[in-house]
Amino acid sequence: MFSHIRLQSFCKEIFTKMGATEADADLASKVLVSADLRGVDSHGVARLSGYIRLWESERINANPEIKIVHETPGTAVVEGDKGLGLVVAPKAMEIAIKKAKNVGTGWVAVKNSNHFGIAGYHAMMALEHDMIGISMTNASPLVSPTFSIERLLGTNPIAVAIPAGEQPPFVADFATTTAANGKLEILQRKGLEAPLGWVQDEKGIQSTNVHVLKNGGALLPLGGDREHGSHKGYCLGAIVDIFSGVFSGANYGPWVPPFVSFLPVADDLVGTGIGHFFGAMRIDAFRPAEEFKQHMDNWITRFRNAIPADGMERVYIPGDPEREISAIRENQGIPLLETVVHDLEQIAAKFNLQL
Amino acid sequence: MFSHIRLQSFCKEIFTKMGATEADADLASKVLVSADLRGVDSHGVARLSGYIRLWESERINANPEIKIVHETPGTAVVEGDKGLGLVVAPKAMEIAIKKAKNVGTGWVAVKNSNHFGIAGYHAMMALEHDMIGISMTNASPLVSPTFSIERLLGTNPIAVAIPAGEQPPFVADFATTTAANGKLEILQRKGLEAPLGWVQDEKGIQSTNVHVLKNGGALLPLGGDREHGSHKGYCLGAIVDIFSGVFSGANYGPWVPPFVSFLPVADDLVGTGIGHFFGAMRIDAFRPAEEFKQHMDNWITRFRNAIPADGMERVYIPGDPEREISAIRENQGIPLLETVVHDLEQIAAKFNLQL
Repeated sequence: MFSHIRLQSFCKEIFTKMGATEADADLASKVLVSADLRGVDSHGVARLSGYIRLWESERINANPEIKIVHETPGTAVVEGDKGLGLVVAPKAMEIAIKKAKNVGTGWVAVKNSNHFGIAGYHAMMALEHDMIGISMTNASPLVSPTFSIERLLGTNPIAVAIPAGEQPPFVADFATTTAANGKLEILQRKGLEAPLGWVQDEKGIQSTNVHVLKNGGALLPLGGDREHGSHKGYCLGAIVDIFSGVFSGANYGPWVPPFVSFLPVADDLVGTGIGHFFGAMRIDAFRPAEEFKQHMDNWITRFRNAIPADGMERVYIPGDPEREISAIRENQGIPLLETVVHDLEQIAAKFNLQL
Repeated sequence: MFSHIRLQSFCKEIFTKMGATEADADLASKVLVSADLRGVDSHGVARLSGYIRLWESERINANPEIKIVHETPGTAVVEGDKGLGLVVAPKAMEIAIKKAKNVGTGWVAVKNSNHFGIAGYHAMMALEHDMIGISMTNASPLVSPTFSIERLLGTNPIAVAIPAGEQPPFVADFATTTAANGKLEILQRKGLEAPLGWVQDEKGIQSTNVHVLKNGGALLPLGGDREHGSHKGYCLGAIVDIFSGVFSGANYGPWVPPFVSFLPVADDLVGTGIGHFFGAMRIDAFRPAEEFKQHMDNWITRFRNAIPADGMERVYIPGDPEREISAIRENQGIPLLETVVHDLEQIAAKFNLQL
């Protein structure tokens, strides 16, 4: 078990060694470890070595000049200057929040960024301002549109955080595929098969083989196949891609640069880096915040008390599982896989630090 | 075959007889028949009798005073005054477009409305202004959250329309369930079974019985079951419900009044009528519109030319199927089921009109 404070402080030292300012290193490590705290292990410190390799191959600039390059009272486009998405994203979200204070809502598209950690972190930044927060990003192409065998979309997540009163907030944060890549990796480690509907092979036939992505296979959009609504998952992934990539001037679709540094970046790029999209909507731009939050409490209570199906224990509100894991891990520490610990130890050695 | 002009003119006469102004009757009939044109037969003239019954039971006010009750530069809440959603929705979308002209984006929540036809119509209104249009609505509770047997959500559709240049626009318009209720009705008429993943029975067990909703069953959120991501479909349906209902002061969740007039309205309502939510985002609030549209052309061309899976003919862009059906039906007319024609004839007789 590793305390989140220890992991954060370790990551902060690494980001500082990479050349980040103290404030940026602090922010990046907080965003990164928030994934481990919330149980999204695939997006936490397990990715630290990936960020370092991108920095080593000069695809990440640890000391970026993040700036607004275009704006209206309610919108902005932010140039990420190849910065860590872990830093660029919360700064862009701050701009969205500021704009919402002025005109009711704020919307910020970001270009030339990198992987931004968990989408939920950025969306949740709006909560303390009595705003709804929205966060999305495009990502390395691993997903085929319905009826295709080409990998043209990322797992393109969407997060929406909605404040409540007495109740904890509603926080949805999900990939627009049937299952995120991290879920597939868990099955790989356990030597298990995937349920049908998660992946297809290189011919476009649904497969249970969890290694199929290495042989030209693809993740499937939410829904799995046409009969089960995969065209809707494809729509969602496409919308995230267009809002994040085409609105901002980042890359989109198959041109999105891969997260892993050993895969080549396309030589006919259509934009810069990867793209994100953020929104903040002031509650009281629609309705008095207290009134809204009372109704959210009512919404949450009604859904949480819904009658469970036979054999099911309870009905969840989006955000419940992550909040419950977070409470446990804040107290008891974060369990890391042996491979991840080994990875962190190697990083420590390379940077002359103690894990 | 019925020409869409004939159907529109018939519906306009009916709405006028119900007491709508000429302009409102014109608008409502245009929105309604746009569903038949686009091949969404469940949301077109087949629903005319449903609207009439709601009007007869005084749940629809044919001559509403639609007004803004709260606003900021970028947002508004609109009171629908029990009007036809077919009229309230496009008027609210106009407000969103106007606000976007001023501050970059516009967002409008609507309360005290009724069924608004197809979501896509309203979203597409933004296109001619070089804006992205977004449209959503809550609806009669027919859907159970993951792990529950209670019907707490509607099929809560989302539509997003994005302009392109040479290419036709990207238009996504989909229910947040595996399959919309209309798809189930088609199987009922044909005497076929539903694929697993569409519905569950009263105990929460997945079923192929297309009549299961009559016996306490429910539609399933997009994904079908937890293993296939139904918690994501549940998140999407919930977000639409909260944006449409809780933001506006309409009803939400299980309190949303049913579309069919023979089902009772809850006696402990939490708001007024049903709720919608609309957004308009000016392209040039982010990036020069011409540049954006060139990239959209590139996006669309790349995805349309994606390599199809074995046995598949082509890869679709969201909006392709509806646009293609629309082109055919504008020329050749709209095929109506015999039951729908019979329904329209009865309406004609009741109002002393010719179909």
